[in-house]
Order: sequence, then structure tokens, then C-alpha cells
Amino acid sequence: MIDSVGPAVTAFKAGDRVLISCVSACGKCEYCRKGMFSHCTTGGWILGNTIDGTQAEFVRTPHADTSLYPIPEGADEEALVMLSDILPTGFECGVLNGKVQPGATVAIVGAGPVGLAALLTAQFYSPAEIIMIDLDDNRLAVAKRFGATQTINSTDGKAVEALMKLTHNKGVDTAIEAVGVPATFELCEQIIAPGGIIANIGVHGVPVTLHLERLWDRNISITTRLVDTASTPMLLDVLGAHKIDPTLLITHRFKFDDILEAYETFGHAAKTKALKVLIEA
Amino acid sequence: MIDSVGPAVTAFKAGDRVLISCVSACGKCEYCRKGMFSHCTTGGWILGNTIDGTQAEFVRTPHADTSLYPIPEGADEEALVMLSDILPTGFECGVLNGKVQPGATVAIVGAGPVGLAALLTAQFYSPAEIIMIDLDDNRLAVAKRFGATQTINSTDGKAVEALMKLTHNKGVDTAIEAVGVPATFELCEQIIAPGGIIANIGVHGVPVTLHLERLWDRNISITTRLVDTASTPMLLDVLGAHKIDPTLLITHRFKFDDILEAYETFGHAAKTKALKVLIEA
Amino acid sequence: MIDSVGPAVTAFKAGDRVLISCVSACGKCEYCRKGMFSHCTTGGWILGNTIDGTQAEFVRTPHADTSLYPIPEGADEEALVMLSDILPTGFECGVLNGKVQPGATVAIVGAGPVGLAALLTAQFYSPAEIIMIDLDDNRLAVAKRFGATQTINSTDGKAVEALMKLTHNKGVDTAIEAVGVPATFELCEQIIAPGGIIANIGVHGVPVTLHLERLWDRNISITTRLVDTASTPMLLDVLGAHKIDPTLLITHRFKFDDILEAYETFGHAAKTKALKVLIEA
Amino acid sequence: MIDSVGPAVTAFKAGDRVLISCVSACGKCEYCRKGMFSHCTTGGWILGNTIDGTQAEFVRTPHADTSLYPIPEGADEEALVMLSDILPTGFECGVLNGKVQPGATVAIVGAGPVGLAALLTAQFYSPAEIIMIDLDDNRLAVAKRFGATQTINSTDGKAVEALMKLTHNKGVDTAIEAVGVPATFELCEQIIAPGGIIANIGVHGVPVTLHLERLWDRNISITTRLVDTASTPMLLDVLGAHKIDPTLLITHRFKFDDILEAYETFGHAAKTKALKVLIEA
Repeated sequence: MIDSVGPAVTAFKAGDRVLISCVSACGKCEYCRKGMFSHCTTGGWILGNTIDGTQAEFVRTPHADTSLYPIPEGADEEALVMLSDILPTGFECGVLNGKVQPGATVAIVGAGPVGLAALLTAQFYSPAEIIMIDLDDNRLAVAKRFGATQTINSTDGKAVEALMKLTHNKGVDTAIEAVGVPATFELCEQIIAPGGIIANIGVHGVPVTLHLERLWDRNISITTRLVDTASTPMLLDVLGAHKIDPTLLITHRFKFDDILEAYETFGHAAKTKALKVLIEA
Repeated sequence: MIDSVGPAVTAFKAGDRVLISCVSACGKCEYCRKGMFSHCTTGGWILGNTIDGTQAEFVRTPHADTSLYPIPEGADEEALVMLSDILPTGFECGVLNGKVQPGATVAIVGAGPVGLAALLTAQFYSPAEIIMIDLDDNRLAVAKRFGATQTINSTDGKAVEALMKLTHNKGVDTAIEAVGVPATFELCEQIIAPGGIIANIGVHGVPVTLHLERLWDRNISITTRLVDTASTPMLLDVLGAHKIDPTLLITHRFKFDDILEAYETFGHAAKTKALKVLIEA
Repeated sequence: MIDSVGPAVTAFKAGDRVLISCVSACGKCEYCRKGMFSHCTTGGWILGNTIDGTQAEFVRTPHADTSLYPIPEGADEEALVMLSDILPTGFECGVLNGKVQPGATVAIVGAGPVGLAALLTAQFYSPAEIIMIDLDDNRLAVAKRFGATQTINSTDGKAVEALMKLTHNKGVDTAIEAVGVPATFELCEQIIAPGGIIANIGVHGVPVTLHLERLWDRNISITTRLVDTASTPMLLDVLGAHKIDPTLLITHRFKFDDILEAYETFGHAAKTKALKVLIEA
Repeated sequence: MIDSVGPAVTAFKAGDRVLISCVSACGKCEYCRKGMFSHCTTGGWILGNTIDGTQAEFVRTPHADTSLYPIPEGADEEALVMLSDILPTGFECGVLNGKVQPGATVAIVGAGPVGLAALLTAQFYSPAEIIMIDLDDNRLAVAKRFGATQTINSTDGKAVEALMKLTHNKGVDTAIEAVGVPATFELCEQIIAPGGIIANIGVHGVPVTLHLERLWDRNISITTRLVDTASTPMLLDVLGAHKIDPTLLITHRFKFDDILEAYETFGHAAKTKALKVLIEA
């Protein structure tokens, strides 16, 4: 439910039910005009980052007119929570940037929530293979249920060999990096086919080694992206048509009063097998 | 003049004057069907690489039907020599991959022949600024004559600061790497604007450091490419319309009998100021 | 099984099992270099059109090297017959030209074999709605089974009103014309949303009226295309991954000796409910 | 100079010098989010159409935050007047929709102001040929000065033959319709090459005949568009770099008090040779 303070909100009125995007967009600046809301000069990823987030009874949302989306009648609100951040992140940074195509071969490195979001949304484009790579057998089992055609547990350090065998030594058309450490990015460099795209989603804290001595003549692309949430209207349409079930990502639900327990659960995901944890009003 | 031996050549006949592309394409394999001739499974960059090149009175060219181009009547044959390799390399790997647009800001790092070829062909798209960066004042002066709007001599190690000042701290929409060493690639990483593209042309011998800790959220792309020469028909059309003068790249001419002197001249380019050296029949 | 006469075929050898594409491509001409095989200067749609077709024990196929596709091991050969013509036609002329997107609203006018091929392949891109329009309730029932989300019988002349109601007066993002008469094309003009695409597949014998007085300011596109079969490798990959079952289109099977009966059945499709009729060796 | 009344304008302040775009964009609606400002649900082309225009001492501009552009320091204000409407119209509807490419062959039918705007902006992409077609020799002479490589006076009804001769019977890659009557649109249908695009700019009052019986298999596209002015930032950048001189379009200047004379002059363009008429403050 929204109520306006400060500059007049005209696109919504008090009482409207809305989706709050994780990215705030002024709609006016150079970047917003290009749909690159993540770099909005007075917005971008500020909620829960440079200002308080939305785990509160009342929230002031910046640039409301261009950062909220009306909730369609009859929509599953739990599913919609996944559209604030995780689903557009996997979709835009991984699937759209990675140009997943019908019949293509895709590898997703990292079967955490964002890797699984990429897995769910990659299927919009009917790739022939989606190969999920992770260290955790439980997550790989989840990935299989979510639509992965093959899984590779990379604990033994032989993921490259395993993947090359699966792809008849061609490598993959799209490699989606969904972890954010050098080892996983460099794995993507080794499995990408000529003409392929490495789409980085991971939040990296240190540099990686780019093997241009092997890649300079391979006709590849590498992309980075902070989610713009520009695909939210499309995702709402796909969700409305029941082409995807993002509630699969929700493993735990807590009341607002039990929020500390929720964080505890999310903080020990390997043990609790938590993917996304929902706080209910 | 061509004369056929081996499998029948049907697209050309003996006596035809033709342009021999530096990349051989069978026209049948998975990669050729995508226009990615550089990765042709039985061709690609083989002339002068894995088999003898074309500095000879008679040459057998592989996959002739799909690797030669008829010379248009009245064409300037010296200009056409530049279309075998250098011009499509600068154009495809730098300008096309870098998606140079009208009004955009472009930096080209390296004012050698291939960087200058990128400079000449970038102007097909009317960018607002083309900033040339090199260590050599002579080459930068050449770049100015060829259409660079700004030049930066990076000898003092302050190219980043200089470029940022020229671009009002925005950086560039397209950064074209035309050297092939870590320092120049990493310079591109520092000057690329959010949403921009680093188009690598350089042949790298060692890895580079990719600062994903700074770039993961910048919405950039990095591309690599071995020239496909798929743009040759377009370049022939542009050349035929006198929209470009690639003979600007030719600084020296030698008779076939003086070929060793030609190599000597090309091998000491800093002293001789050689760009491209032409061997005449 | 192929056996070569005339110019040497090098990409295939006698005994190989191959798919013969309905379009022959020399791989060398201006159009083939662009992937526009339909306009190959010495090929294109010639089989069964300007030369004899393939309903024979032995066939000479022109430009074999670049017009045949090896049959993957274990492939369903009945399904592959649909990849010679009908499936790439619906896919390229309808779905690719129509830029079907996840979450989009698509109308297909005409539920004959080619319209149904567009219906099957449109689902590669997860549109929210695929609305099938036809005069025949049987074909509309088939369309429902093939994945149409809505159907409209246009016998009453009120298809526009019905579609507008289904789309909340927005019209459709993609309208695929799969009949080839003025009435159905002009129906597409009436139901296309601002920014949408009318993708024509139909073979038209007479002109249509283009209502530019209504459409000049609607930001729409209209596309025409003779199938290029350039998407055959992609369709083979999608088929290999069991993302589509084109054998759904096969309603009847006849032995080669009963070929006249096969034509009879196909010629009275309304009565026999024939979609595609297979001739078995 | 702007001064705000009504909803607060935050992107500009009183005293700012601004360019008023001919299209008003709310920045919030479904269409504005796609950059299709022409179809803004509360804006679009309303100035001088459904509400008063800007020929006044004071003007209230709707959706000011997202419909005005700051005038760069040192900019030529006369040139900027051409960026409100005529230049983006020729560029977006003709050149961008028509996908003009380096080396391509372009025809522009109609050498009035909007056709000439297309001519000026088509040169951003270095086409090999721009063939201008009109009935008026004076306008064709202007077109030559503006960069047309060939001109055809179509008074004799033989424009198709003349163009086909100029293009060696290939026709053109892009045909830009800049008149708005059936004869000129149908001329475009006759001169378009296989794979080409007819980009309509003209405002049509009656239907045209679309010869699908000839075009269904020609792999062409036809586009329509009401200018979105989404390219204004790009055009400002190109103008700032002096890559275009739109003041060429200004043939007459009048003081505000002589505005009726200005309209008189513009109303008799054939006699006065007026292209664009400027009203000075």
C-alpha cells in the first residue's frame, strides 16, 4: 500500500498494491533514457544499499512513479516478491546478456538463488542444454528439478573435462557466472565455445585473470551488468501467463516478528538448504 | 589472375582479377554458415600462417570459390590490397564489435596500422570524438591527419587522467585495443564508460588482469575476434563509393625483387615511419 | 542415401543419410553470403518448382554441399521430414521475422500446416498468448492441442472484435499471416498493436489494401519472406533436445506406390482433416 | 527560458535554456518505458496538434522533465530548432527504421524538408549511394548540394526505369518514402531490392495498394513510425561535433511580428523555394 510524501506521485494512488523494484529509476537522466536504470544518476541500487531497505511497516520509495509496478489482479504475491530483484538479476545479467537461443548449449556456474533464477528464465528461450555446475550436490539436485538437463559437481577440479565431454569438445554458447570468485570466472573462460558469450552475474571482490593469450582469436564476448530491472514488465507478463513458477525459489517463510531467525536461516544456507527466505507481513 | 588446380573452381575463371582474403572460408561448415569464417574448420587464417602466403608469382588459394572477391572494374588495386586483411581487421574487430554509433565517443589505443584502420573505418558511423592514444608523436600526428579528433601521448603514464578530462569524467562508449599487451588492455578497462564496449583487436601473448571488482556492475562488454573478413563485400562497396581512402596506410612501395628491403623497412617502423609496405609485381 | 554425379560433392559421401532442404544454396553468391539462401542466384526454391522435386527413388540435388544436412544419429526421420520446408517456413517467416518475445501476445491467422508450424515454433520464445484464428473448428481444436492459448473462429466476420476483447483493446505484438488472401492480411492490419510486427507467410496472388492512413503513425513493421532455411541447424538442435514434436503435423502416411491416393487425401484436407501427408519409401 | 506551473519540474530550473521536443513523454507509461514516446498515453504528438503549440511568448510544456533537453553551451540555437521535429523525424522514421548501412544504396522519394532531413542524417552511416527522387528540379538541385549522389526527376513517370538503370537492376537496400501519397509509396515497392526495407515517413490520408503478389517472396520489410524523438540526445551529440549542419534547411527568417508573412511564404513553397522558415523572438 502506498502513501505519498514529498514530490507528488502521480502514477499511483494511496491504497494501490505495488511491486517495489530493487533498482530506483528517476526516468529522466541520461542512463534512464537508455533503460540503464542501474546507473540512474540519482537512483540505481540504493534501497538496502545506500539508504534503508524495505523490511519495515512503512517505506518511502525514491522515484516512485518510475520504480514501482502495479500488481496485476489475481497475481500470486509470493511469486512477485521474486520479481523485485532475484529474477530480473538472473534474467538480465545472465540470460539476456548471454543471448540464450533456441537449441543453444548453456552452462550456469553456481546453483545458488541467482544461478537458479538464471536457470528458470533461460528456459524462456528453449536452449537444448542447460548444464549446471556447483560444489553442492543438494543444489545440483534442486537444479535438476528446476530444469537443468545436466549437472556437474566441480569438487574434484575436473569440471572443464566433464563439460567438454558433455559438449563433444565444443564448449558452450553461453556461460553464466553466478558466483563471483576468480575460479568460477576462469572456469567460464575455459568452457566457452568460439563465438560464445560469458555473462557475468557474480559480485566480484578481487580481480580475475583474463586469458587473452587464448581468447583473443576466439570471437567471444564477456558482459557485466548490475541489474536494471528494465525487464520487469516482460517478467510480469510471463508470470501472468504461468510460463514460470518463481515460488520454487522460496524455501522458508517467517513472520515479520521472527526476522532474526529468518536471517539466521539464510546465513546458514548450506545447512538449512535455504534458497530465498520470505518475510510475511 | 587465377588458374585452377584441384577441386573445380566455379565462381571464377582463369584470367579473372581477384582480391585474396587473408581468411579462407569453405562456406559449408558450422562456422562458415554463421559468417564466422575465421573459425572455418578447414580454413580460417591459414595463408601465411599454417601454409605459405601469397608473396609469390603463383599461388594456390584454398576454398577459392568462397575466399576470393572479384575486383570491380576501375578499382584502385593498391587500395584493394588493404582490404585483404588490415581494413577488415580494424573494422570488424574494432568498429563493428565496438558498435561505434553516431555521436559516440571512441578511444583507440595504439596508432599502428591496425589502429589506424580502425580509425578510418570508425568514421563510417560519424562518432563525435575519436581519441587516439599512443606513445609515438609521429603516429599521433598521422592519426590526426586520418581523422582523430584528439590525441593523447601516453608516455607519461597519465593517459587515463587526460582522457577522463577530455570526456568530462564520463569515459568512452567504445575503447578499441589495438596493441596486444596487458598495459593497453588495462588502460581500456579504466576509461570505459558504463554501458560501453571494449573491443580487443590486439594479439595477446600473456594474460591480462580483468578488474571485475570494479567492472562487475558497470554494464560493459568485452569482445575478442579474429577477423572473419565477412565485411569484405561492404568494404568493397564503401571503397567503390570513395567514402574511404585506405591508400593512406601505404607509406612505402618496393618491387618484388627488393622484398628483403621491404621487410627491413617494415621491421624498423619506428625509424622508417612505415605503416603498410606494398610489394609491386 | 547420396551418390554424386556432376561437380564433386565434398561435404558428404555416398551412403550418408541427409536432410534435403527445400531451398538450394550455392553458398557463394551475394545472397548466400548474407544467409538469404532463398534468393541464391543459381538456387533458391527450385526443387519441385523450376526443376523436379524429390518424390523419386533417386534424386540429383543442386548445390549439395551447402543444401544438405547430415541426419544426427538416433534422429526421428519422420520428424526431420518436417524440417525440409514446413517448420523453417513457419519459424523464419512467422516467428523470427515476427520477433516473438517472452511474455508477448501473438496472433496467427490461418491454422493450416504452415500456421501450425508457426504455432509450434513460436513456443520456443514463451509468449504469454498465442491466439489462433481460422474458419474451421477442427483446425482450431488441433491448434489448442498444439499449444494455442485462445482460438477465434472468424466465420462470423467478428474476429477483430473478439481479438480486441481478448487483448484488452491493445491488439497483438506479432500478427502472423498464414493464409495468403487480402481478407486475412487486412485482418492483421486491424489487430496489430502500436510497435507491433505483421509477419507475412502467405503466398499471395493478388494485391492487398494497406491502410497507411491508419497505420502511418503506429510504429509497425510488415515483413515478407521466402523461407531461407538458414535456421535448419538451429531447428535440428531444438529437435535433438526434444523441445518440439513436429510429427504432430503428420496426419496421414502412404506408401510410395499409393502416392496418388496421398495427393487425393491432401487435396481434400477439409474433409480428410489432413495436415501433412507422409510418403514412405 | 522556463518557469514552472503545475506539477513540480525538477530536472530544470527557471532561466534554463531548453530545446522543446515536438513529442511530449511522461516517462512512466508502458510506451515511454520502451522509448516509444510517440505513443505516450498522456503525451505523444500533442503540441500544435491537440493542444496549442509553441509560437507564443510563454508556453506551458507538458511532462517537462522528460520532454525538454538542456541546450549545450555554445550551441547554435538555429540549428537546434531543427532538432525539435524535422531532423529526428527524417532520422528515426527514415534512416534508423530503414537501417541505412555503410556501402548501401538508398533512395529517398520526396525532396521536401523531411526528405532532406533524411538525406542529411543518412550520411551518418556512409551509404555508397543516396538517390533522391522528386518532381521539382530546384529541390533536386538542393538535394545534390546536401549530399545526394544521384537525382531523378520523376515527372516523366519513368523513375523506376531510371533507378533500376542506376542500380544495375538491383534496386535499393533502403527506400525512404517522404511524401505520403499512394504513387510515391508504390514507387518504393517497385524499387526495393530483395532483403531491403521501405521506411515510410509520409503522412498518408488514403490507403495504398501493397503488391504482395510480387513482394511476398522478396524478404522485405515495411516500417511506419510517428517520430519518438528518442534520438534527440544522439542528434545533440552529432550536432555538437559538427558532423551535420541542419541550418542548411532554413531558407527564410521572420520576426515574430511578421509571422503571417512567414506562413504565407511556407504555404507557397514551390514559388518561394522555402524549406524551413524560422520565427525569431
